[in-house]
Amino acid sequence: MTELRQNMATKEWVIIANERAKRPDEYIDAQWRVHTTAQEPFDPKCPFCPGNEERDLEVEQNPPSGPWKTRVVYNKYPALSREGELTRTFDGVHRRISGVGYHEIVVEHPSHNTTLALMTSEEIRLVLETFYNRGWSIRKDSRIEQIVYFKNHGERAGASLKHPHSQIIGLPVVPTDIRHRIEEARRYFDDNGQCVFCTMMEDELRKEERLVAVNDHFVAFVLYAAPSPFHTWVLPRQHSVSFLYSQPDEIQALADILRIILKKMYIGLNDPAYNLIIRSAPVKEISNDYLHWYVTVIPRLSRTAGFEMGSGMFINPALPEESAAFLRGVEVE
Amino acid sequence: MTELRQNMATKEWVIIANERAKRPDEYIDAQWRVHTTAQEPFDPKCPFCPGNEERDLEVEQNPPSGPWKTRVVYNKYPALSREGELTRTFDGVHRRISGVGYHEIVVEHPSHNTTLALMTSEEIRLVLETFYNRGWSIRKDSRIEQIVYFKNHGERAGASLKHPHSQIIGLPVVPTDIRHRIEEARRYFDDNGQCVFCTMMEDELRKEERLVAVNDHFVAFVLYAAPSPFHTWVLPRQHSVSFLYSQPDEIQALADILRIILKKMYIGLNDPAYNLIIRSAPVKEISNDYLHWYVTVIPRLSRTAGFEMGSGMFINPALPEESAAFLRGVEVE
Repeated sequence: MTELRQNMATKEWVIIANERAKRPDEYIDAQWRVHTTAQEPFDPKCPFCPGNEERDLEVEQNPPSGPWKTRVVYNKYPALSREGELTRTFDGVHRRISGVGYHEIVVEHPSHNTTLALMTSEEIRLVLETFYNRGWSIRKDSRIEQIVYFKNHGERAGASLKHPHSQIIGLPVVPTDIRHRIEEARRYFDDNGQCVFCTMMEDELRKEERLVAVNDHFVAFVLYAAPSPFHTWVLPRQHSVSFLYSQPDEIQALADILRIILKKMYIGLNDPAYNLIIRSAPVKEISNDYLHWYVTVIPRLSRTAGFEMGSGMFINPALPEESAAFLRGVEVE
Repeated sequence: MTELRQNMATKEWVIIANERAKRPDEYIDAQWRVHTTAQEPFDPKCPFCPGNEERDLEVEQNPPSGPWKTRVVYNKYPALSREGELTRTFDGVHRRISGVGYHEIVVEHPSHNTTLALMTSEEIRLVLETFYNRGWSIRKDSRIEQIVYFKNHGERAGASLKHPHSQIIGLPVVPTDIRHRIEEARRYFDDNGQCVFCTMMEDELRKEERLVAVNDHFVAFVLYAAPSPFHTWVLPRQHSVSFLYSQPDEIQALADILRIILKKMYIGLNDPAYNLIIRSAPVKEISNDYLHWYVTVIPRLSRTAGFEMGSGMFINPALPEESAAFLRGVEVE
């Protein structure tokens, strides 16, 4: 029989329908593969390849001069723009806000045919350092309430360009979905006197069955109530509301554990499309006992359809414990 | 400049990024087309085609004997099962519920190569009547809290079988997302003394610029804060919490307006993949002043990516007023 499981942090129910189960390696559907290395290392038409840079869009590069290792550019078709005043207006019965904000692209590597899973820890650390630096810069703008750091790998995960890159969006509002999550976390703290994310992490470390990888600073596990196969959370052991308060050794440790998780997925699931998101508190939340930042890695092995859109609930055909055991079993050097 | 618009019912913000705009007809990307009529009218391998029926999965057919016009079958790989006890248990720190519920498929038509957009009003009415009958039957089961009626048209919208069909899922919980929507609607009523959906509908009827179609019982419009291009709501003019309290003339009127909307999309957007959802109150909510059932039609012209997953917010590259004007301009006999 299938079961419903509740994510204790968000209170969202998920249907774990593992009677429809496939073996974990059967999720490797050819059409969801990205085939990263089938590309050439340089694409003369790619705006992110060295030599093709559109300098008018440049925000910064690292190192600041000479050949770059990572690079930040403005999105050519930004969802939000830096210029302009933040205005809230009524539009009849409706409310609207001017589209002020940030929409930047982090070019992760000079090479066209690589991806985080194939990079060294040091290369991934540079990408995270770039997120960190841009995050601190964007949060200085008092119009910004929330920063979302994310990566779309592969067309099925929403990537329109193949060159390895991530995106940073700075928003002038705290999205409703994030507000709801904050309220749930606060309620848990009120009831129990401790952070729900710390509680989950301790439980996963004790149980071990859903762990994917651990190191001194981070714990990675497949969610008990995973909405989709291999849906993984990477939590910092140190309670903190924001990625932006991470210390250098934590950023290094995050690079280490992300490399391992992404490489396990790359090998075990054969370069799947995935999304990676850093979930950090609204930028004006400096510190509290109930919010805890984390990273989510979501292989995109299925589609969102009418049921998910109509209920907000997901049906996961994979047993989270089996997904975790599968990833633990993939050897990574 | 782009703008953020708030859905006044759900309080969700959407980025309307129409500077990236395409003309409405440019959304007709070949890979999102379904090509319904390119199929044969009968597929010897299709379990829904007449003659291939799997009788052990049958729930009912209409008419009850002889050649059927619509048919309801159990999902062969159900997410939830009718048998078994509803048990809530603790699993360590987590909560879970046995996978009790309903997962049924409505075969909408004997013909393999048709779709709602190509059916007559009477044929669509029969499909809605089937939803209605199954809904009343499922809600008699006291274990059920919420019924979701939905359709996935085309592979990009999550359909795995081509034969025209919809699905009904009866859940033993009210999903968190629906609970949040209920709370927002109640808050609006507390503040304003009227239903937020009635308010939106009156506003759309007055403004006219986002209307797609109207009749005596329903008003269809592209949402002010549409999360994606052509995202349409169809609201009953009569305030009511549930589709299941509809009168026969309302069901006929819903069939009429759905045929027009779906046909406009079929012609104007060239048979796009779409999801259709009936959003009805939890089944134990018999009547109140603040919830209002409706139908959503969502052409699937883009993908959900990391930003949407990490923020719950959507970026819509189409101006809702232009989407609505485009659909109004598509002539339907």
